[in-house]
Amino acid sequence: MSPEKHVIEIQTGTKKIKVGDGSFTVIAGPCSIESYQQFFSTAKVVAEQGASLLRGGVWKLRTSSKTFQGLGGEAFDIVRKVTHEMNMGITIEVTDPRQIEELHPMVSMFQVGSRNMHNYALLKELAKQDKPVLLKRGFAALVSEWLSAAEYINQTGAPKVILCERGIRTFETSTRNTLDLNSAIYAKKNTPYPVIVDPSHGVGISQLVPDLALAATALGIDGLIMEVHPNPKEALSDGMQALTFENYDHLMTKVDKVLTALDRSIQRL
Amino acid sequence: MSPEKHVIEIQTGTKKIKVGDGSFTVIAGPCSIESYQQFFSTAKVVAEQGASLLRGGVWKLRTSSKTFQGLGGEAFDIVRKVTHEMNMGITIEVTDPRQIEELHPMVSMFQVGSRNMHNYALLKELAKQDKPVLLKRGFAALVSEWLSAAEYINQTGAPKVILCERGIRTFETSTRNTLDLNSAIYAKKNTPYPVIVDPSHGVGISQLVPDLALAATALGIDGLIMEVHPNPKEALSDGMQALTFENYDHLMTKVDKVLTALDRSIQRL
Amino acid sequence: MSPEKHVIEIQTGTKKIKVGDGSFTVIAGPCSIESYQQFFSTAKVVAEQGASLLRGGVWKLRTSSKTFQGLGGEAFDIVRKVTHEMNMGITIEVTDPRQIEELHPMVSMFQVGSRNMHNYALLKELAKQDKPVLLKRGFAALVSEWLSAAEYINQTGAPKVILCERGIRTFETSTRNTLDLNSAIYAKKNTPYPVIVDPSHGVGISQLVPDLALAATALGIDGLIMEVHPNPKEALSDGMQALTFENYDHLMTKVDKVLTALDRSIQRL
Amino acid sequence: MSPEKHVIEIQTGTKKIKVGDGSFTVIAGPCSIESYQQFFSTAKVVAEQGASLLRGGVWKLRTSSKTFQGLGGEAFDIVRKVTHEMNMGITIEVTDPRQIEELHPMVSMFQVGSRNMHNYALLKELAKQDKPVLLKRGFAALVSEWLSAAEYINQTGAPKVILCERGIRTFETSTRNTLDLNSAIYAKKNTPYPVIVDPSHGVGISQLVPDLALAATALGIDGLIMEVHPNPKEALSDGMQALTFENYDHLMTKVDKVLTALDRSIQRL
Repeated sequence: MSPEKHVIEIQTGTKKIKVGDGSFTVIAGPCSIESYQQFFSTAKVVAEQGASLLRGGVWKLRTSSKTFQGLGGEAFDIVRKVTHEMNMGITIEVTDPRQIEELHPMVSMFQVGSRNMHNYALLKELAKQDKPVLLKRGFAALVSEWLSAAEYINQTGAPKVILCERGIRTFETSTRNTLDLNSAIYAKKNTPYPVIVDPSHGVGISQLVPDLALAATALGIDGLIMEVHPNPKEALSDGMQALTFENYDHLMTKVDKVLTALDRSIQRL
Repeated sequence: MSPEKHVIEIQTGTKKIKVGDGSFTVIAGPCSIESYQQFFSTAKVVAEQGASLLRGGVWKLRTSSKTFQGLGGEAFDIVRKVTHEMNMGITIEVTDPRQIEELHPMVSMFQVGSRNMHNYALLKELAKQDKPVLLKRGFAALVSEWLSAAEYINQTGAPKVILCERGIRTFETSTRNTLDLNSAIYAKKNTPYPVIVDPSHGVGISQLVPDLALAATALGIDGLIMEVHPNPKEALSDGMQALTFENYDHLMTKVDKVLTALDRSIQRL
Repeated sequence: MSPEKHVIEIQTGTKKIKVGDGSFTVIAGPCSIESYQQFFSTAKVVAEQGASLLRGGVWKLRTSSKTFQGLGGEAFDIVRKVTHEMNMGITIEVTDPRQIEELHPMVSMFQVGSRNMHNYALLKELAKQDKPVLLKRGFAALVSEWLSAAEYINQTGAPKVILCERGIRTFETSTRNTLDLNSAIYAKKNTPYPVIVDPSHGVGISQLVPDLALAATALGIDGLIMEVHPNPKEALSDGMQALTFENYDHLMTKVDKVLTALDRSIQRL
Repeated sequence: MSPEKHVIEIQTGTKKIKVGDGSFTVIAGPCSIESYQQFFSTAKVVAEQGASLLRGGVWKLRTSSKTFQGLGGEAFDIVRKVTHEMNMGITIEVTDPRQIEELHPMVSMFQVGSRNMHNYALLKELAKQDKPVLLKRGFAALVSEWLSAAEYINQTGAPKVILCERGIRTFETSTRNTLDLNSAIYAKKNTPYPVIVDPSHGVGISQLVPDLALAATALGIDGLIMEVHPNPKEALSDGMQALTFENYDHLMTKVDKVLTALDRSIQRL
């Protein structure tokens, strides 16, 4: 099978990047936006070393109702300020169809999280707007279901879905999830959608994130999305899987080298 | 562990039933409400033989955007008519926080489907209203995550959650799901929540539904929820797992006998 | 599909039992044979209350090489003495093709454990001898692989395989395994083999074993195999899932009642 | 944790290679040895392009008793002739404790297949001999069980176990297995054992094998084991996952480049 491949254009600040055209895209930022200082310092570091789009959570889907649920609307000013100062776009996870209208002017790309991949009410609303959507695979979704979810979003209008493999749930518990690079490359080769990989959630242990990030880089997919934090030990969410600035820098040097060895390169702003 | 057990009172027509008080509750009806005739005929049969609450889908969460998505608002008149004529209540699956207000006067209990167990935006809205909620286990949710989801709903106000085990996703493919009776009885014994079992989704093959329904009856949980259809072969959704009227009748006679053997009985209106 | 059903005759002491003829067979005994006193006292109790065949491990397959590995050959005298005194047969797990010859005169039925279901070298040797074989399902085996393993044993000569569902490995960790009653009844209805269920390994928590045993009883399969121990807390293996004599008695009374309610009965010696 | 790392020395022909010393080892050959011509031609190609050890099956563990079971003893002359002519060693899977004595003079390393990882009778016999053992992970084995199996082999004498990740069984069916690179790198970093990866079984689709092989190369483990066949379409076993000579050549050029980019290199004879 050799379907016609989608190339997704994303507006990031005053520039545009393309995903699915053969280049390699890096999206990075903190799990949650916690403060201006935390988000700005992270944005600066990731942008200097290869990231062309920011990530940052505003509403967090947390298993427990008693843990940090994100800053919510309070994060909006921080998002506007930092993306303006950096002249960069951001992808933010949307968790409720009622957030779409408010988020739309702020995001370069919507993100649908793993727990919402089957939330068809949300997917149908995203079908009605025009911005790209990063569709994370449900942690127990078959590839066929992932593609059906993409079709929900894609049912009206032009290509706008980027698939993101972020680890599946298996019997193994020594790592948080099982990063399924098999399905990532299967989807890349057998569907029209660009595919990126999230090694942060995929393995869930910061010491192993760079190893899986390099593996995904050599695999042949379209990019990476990663969590970076100025001080992972004090992160309000997912600190155990965030890279420090130093680890991120060190990793990106290697990502560069591996891509060069394979005649590819990081897409820079 | 011996937590204080919740007893959930459900208004069904002009009467009330209790779940969690030791009695055995049967909820039955079609997967989707397709027409007045289909829903009314099913309601009559299941009510005659043990069901004290109806079930029927209005918005369906379907993997493919191209399959039947439920009648939506068109089903409301049918629901009102049939529940009034039968003097029985109904549980309907809610798939979007924006549906809650409209559904509230019509349902005796809200139902959260397996694919929405992790939809915390929805759970938080359900926490704000007063009716009981049937919380199906996510098909790949740990028991601990199921209980965390229950806490989202239960965070304000009185007990109102009934847990429903409906099969999990495993490597096995000869049946649609793997009904996890282990977790059903584990949750029953170790949490305050009543637990019911859905053998229809749990096994997904109509010929095997009665066998699993009997197994669940002998297990020691609080009841069953089952899909029944006048003509499963022509059902617009899930026909392969629906019981015919005859199979339902035949099964319920055995459910009765097994409960009697264990000094329990079906709660009848 | 309605394949011709196999009825397996097992010599137990000077008598014979049949599995697969509609009757319900109970096999019980300790996980490991630890001493004459332990095995004899257990045998007496289980025989009085419904068991028509004993079980008892001689070589144990333990995950860790540092835990109790079974008495090995030292258990043989105990086995001979107790089976003679009780006039009952025993099923013993065989873990190495070189054990078959020595075990053959002692056992009424060989048992292949879950970890050896894929050990085709062992299965091929078992095909060459004449006694029945209890084939436990591999804890991650597809039903189709389980049936292929049965064919390895059955490839020469008359029917001699009884299938045993004993729990599969899934993502869930609140119970030791996930008892897959779906596959048990699927195999019962779609293959010629008799099927029994092992609730002890299937759930792995002694407080829940009776609940799952009752569920399996109502399911419609051919029997149960269970672990019973005079003092589970001091058992050298699997103590957390063994029934006390009292729990076993209490359970069997209920098994009897559920079978009677369904017009079946326990096969007694 | 930073355990002292094992370096395993393997005699291959008249030379020696080391696994676990930082170098990258490639083991390659056909799934099954089918004929002198097939094995010799494959050996030549893989040796020219980076392989320092051969692989080739003699007894195959096949799910069905009706498929090709390997040449068995008939393969021995072929093995002796080809390894002599190539001055290279071979690793052969052992499936029965009774084969060890006969295989011992012929192999540079024993291989324990995925289905036998839990066959402790076999592991205990392998503990008694002196050659290295490649221990494939059971397709549903926890990392902790994999390490326990390694301990069975390692309980007497010097380090001799190399771990091999070869894909696990999950709910996903679009690829044959799910290659678990998370666990591969977890085991590499947290245990003393060298770790290699088998992308052939790991993904099970020949078109995707090179992609996963490159990902594993960049991951940071000790090597690869791969299936290569002169004519995969006519292979008697596992043809769907074997590389052609051309694909193997093409892949190895890239493996070389990726390793160089990461300051590593293939260990050549």
